[in-house]
Amino acid sequence: MRKNTTLPARRSPCPVACALDILGDKWSLLVVRDLLLGRKRFKDFLSSPERIPTNILSERLNRLIQRGIVSPIPLEESPGRHGYALTEKGQALQSIIQSLVKWGLEWEPDTLVNMKKMKG
Amino acid sequence: MRKNTTLPARRSPCPVACALDILGDKWSLLVVRDLLLGRKRFKDFLSSPERIPTNILSERLNRLIQRGIVSPIPLEESPGRHGYALTEKGQALQSIIQSLVKWGLEWEPDTLVNMKKMKG
Repeated sequence: MRKNTTLPARRSPCPVACALDILGDKWSLLVVRDLLLGRKRFKDFLSSPERIPTNILSERLNRLIQRGIVSPIPLEESPGRHGYALTEKGQALQSIIQSLVKWGLEWEPDTLVNMKKMKG
Repeated sequence: MRKNTTLPARRSPCPVACALDILGDKWSLLVVRDLLLGRKRFKDFLSSPERIPTNILSERLNRLIQRGIVSPIPLEESPGRHGYALTEKGQALQSIIQSLVKWGLEWEPDTLVNMKKMKG
């Protein structure tokens, strides 16, 4: 589902570089974290403690959709409006999030997790 | 060894956010990748296929040193000059790199690894 005509050129075929071409910023993986926690509405992401700016959230969600990581979904509780969910490709990012959680908890003082799903 | 007076404020105590405060950009984890592969001289990093610009490399190495992830080391082959190595905190990033390798290989087409140490 990649749209090569609209995606920026890769820096190399290294899988780390290619992953960082998509995810290498301060916000994208926090949106993925929130999606893994079950958040799905635009306002859910805005209410996370890091206070992502609205314009950055819009841009990151659109990029994650473009790269096949996130998919828009209908919101049953709000007919006519849509939310967001991880695709299979996005769900596969869980191991990266878990590695970040583990490293942060071990090496950055005073970090804490109140997200049971993240600990596994 | 954190120097709180010179470090930017955290966005939250979430370990993912704290890790991304340090590592959330397109280049830092590529420098870590190169260090895990045994590269240690400034020019070694410059010669990686992603062609990191010199000024960005300097800034990232300094930041990684400041955050306790990288340490300057003497270069035996070049007396009076120094190179770079991962600290224990930096070595602990290997699981994050491995997760990125695995995800990239599985989900981004035409990626490849020629780094046996990265596959484990």
